[in-house]
Amino acid sequence: MSQTKLNVNLEERSYEIQIVSHGVSELPGLLEEWVSQRSYWKQSRPKGLIVCDVNVTGYAQQIMDCLQAAGWSIAMLTVPSGEKTKSIEHVSRIYSQLVAMIADRKTTVFAVGGGVVGDLAGFAAATYARGLPFVQIPTTLLSDVDSSVGGKVGINLPEGKNLVGAFHQPLGVLIETDFLLTLPDREYRSGLAEVVKYGVIMDESFFDYLEQHTNALRQRDPDVLREVIRRSCQCKADVVEEDEYERTGRRAILNYGHTFAHAYEALCGYGTLLHGEAVSIGMIDASILAEKLGRISSDTTTRQIHLLEKLDLPIAIPEEIQPGPAEMIDVMLRDKKTVGGELRFVLPTRLGHVETVGGVSTEMVQDVLTRNML
Amino acid sequence: MSQTKLNVNLEERSYEIQIVSHGVSELPGLLEEWVSQRSYWKQSRPKGLIVCDVNVTGYAQQIMDCLQAAGWSIAMLTVPSGEKTKSIEHVSRIYSQLVAMIADRKTTVFAVGGGVVGDLAGFAAATYARGLPFVQIPTTLLSDVDSSVGGKVGINLPEGKNLVGAFHQPLGVLIETDFLLTLPDREYRSGLAEVVKYGVIMDESFFDYLEQHTNALRQRDPDVLREVIRRSCQCKADVVEEDEYERTGRRAILNYGHTFAHAYEALCGYGTLLHGEAVSIGMIDASILAEKLGRISSDTTTRQIHLLEKLDLPIAIPEEIQPGPAEMIDVMLRDKKTVGGELRFVLPTRLGHVETVGGVSTEMVQDVLTRNML
Repeated sequence: MSQTKLNVNLEERSYEIQIVSHGVSELPGLLEEWVSQRSYWKQSRPKGLIVCDVNVTGYAQQIMDCLQAAGWSIAMLTVPSGEKTKSIEHVSRIYSQLVAMIADRKTTVFAVGGGVVGDLAGFAAATYARGLPFVQIPTTLLSDVDSSVGGKVGINLPEGKNLVGAFHQPLGVLIETDFLLTLPDREYRSGLAEVVKYGVIMDESFFDYLEQHTNALRQRDPDVLREVIRRSCQCKADVVEEDEYERTGRRAILNYGHTFAHAYEALCGYGTLLHGEAVSIGMIDASILAEKLGRISSDTTTRQIHLLEKLDLPIAIPEEIQPGPAEMIDVMLRDKKTVGGELRFVLPTRLGHVETVGGVSTEMVQDVLTRNML
Repeated sequence: MSQTKLNVNLEERSYEIQIVSHGVSELPGLLEEWVSQRSYWKQSRPKGLIVCDVNVTGYAQQIMDCLQAAGWSIAMLTVPSGEKTKSIEHVSRIYSQLVAMIADRKTTVFAVGGGVVGDLAGFAAATYARGLPFVQIPTTLLSDVDSSVGGKVGINLPEGKNLVGAFHQPLGVLIETDFLLTLPDREYRSGLAEVVKYGVIMDESFFDYLEQHTNALRQRDPDVLREVIRRSCQCKADVVEEDEYERTGRRAILNYGHTFAHAYEALCGYGTLLHGEAVSIGMIDASILAEKLGRISSDTTTRQIHLLEKLDLPIAIPEEIQPGPAEMIDVMLRDKKTVGGELRFVLPTRLGHVETVGGVSTEMVQDVLTRNML
């Protein structure tokens, strides 16, 4: 077993992210440590509910076995994959399961899966009995480096995504790189796009490290993965620690590439492009926009293009699914992060630093979007 | 306009309770003050949703008018009276209304009604967009002195009461004694039982004050009401400030009389006894139990009996609806606050002080319950 870890420092809501390879069996010991740090808890026989994605029931079973062996009383609830699972109906199913197992405020909810399961199970944990302890065990690279830090949980309404939710920090997070070995190629690469994002927005030396380890990353080398996940989570933790409740605007820098990405996702049909693929393209769009605004030289864009290409990520929207620039701009103007009908973007000033830039003209954005057609 | 106020001190979640008579029109000014204390907010044209009980639409309209006159954009949603309204269905109605009015994180939810509306609207506010500002404007004496302090919000599941919820402290609370003038007599008295409780559990001088002002209380004298509400809220605030998240056990003292009361409510059929009536009887049960355990002399019980009687509150369960002692004990053992199958009660040691006492024998409780039959 190899491991590394980091702390997310949020006063009494602080928690630890343990990143392991071949280390799932450490979970019961970790839980004991995490619980002992919350002095207000007196545990009798510990009880838990595992909520897992139907695609990873094998991993969930492995976790259930090792918790049971350590004396835990554990139930499991399987939910379908995909965004539609983040619904009031599925939260209600979790509530009913918690009632059936006579859950109390010490009953721990474990999320085993990607972002969808983490958001759903986390929201149920945030609201059942006014808050249950919650443990994230992400099984995708994207959720390892994104939703495992920050405490955002939530569900969708028929009217829109993530409209209902809470900030509910976990008791702890266990990331197992072994789980990434069975992840489909496209999903794995999609997670790497968010990893590259952290380098661009706040850590040039991390970007260098990624450039130097593209082969190991393609091969899912566990030692490199632990380092990459730790540094990604550290980047996000630094931002979240400054702006836990999304009030100062600091958290906005995490949206580098995302204004373009959300528009591509919306217009190409969800699922045509994976989120990370859209982010990969969106980062290059944003970088070209920064060039046009005279904020960076073309080198900065070129380095991103080279790194993303080496990681088999797209750097431009395929022509056959390319939406019209006018439609794209229209969607971007309706983005919930838009303020006062003004186009705003997170743009690099150099590798490792970004700023929010408002008042960008639609003509300039149109120029960026049509770069394939030139 | 006459007014008094108190602060609930919970670090950055601190808030003010303003208690006024003929003072609803002060609300826009108060809101401006409350918002200005949250430095992370920049308000443009303020927007709000009033959720109100169908019985108090007149008061809600009054509030709506004065907010609109002050430049607020306001919508109103009316919900039925009664415990059944605390459902996922009604929360979903509030969510849809918020979507329809394009709510953002500054949109304020106002609860106008009793505990049911406060719990429901507060839960919607706690979870929509991961948390909206929330203002309580209680219209019953019970909600004035109970749910307006402490931040507990929540809904019921088909399987049980208050199973889903959050701790969501309000931006501020406005209590208008004028609203109590139209409250039905039984409901008004029911609120007084909780007022008496505060005197018994933690403030003997407040108990003395109540003894000296029974006539004014029966006449709903606004000056006396403001004082009584302020001191009741202060008692609860003192407890909540020590134990915001119900972790230390301190909040348990608020359950004086409630172990008996919950059992009466469950067995007599909800609605036969109002909550405060059950609490009134339950306090005397608990006090007699404390006598039998040698913790207090009969004087302490007698003073409570006299005060409750002067306030037209029942001090024993009417014989025609009296449940059997065995059933009562059975329900008390299944109470969610029971630990390890042991009967526990909050009992006075003198007027103004209570303790939690475990390991009470069923025989002794049976003796207390059959006091009418002796």
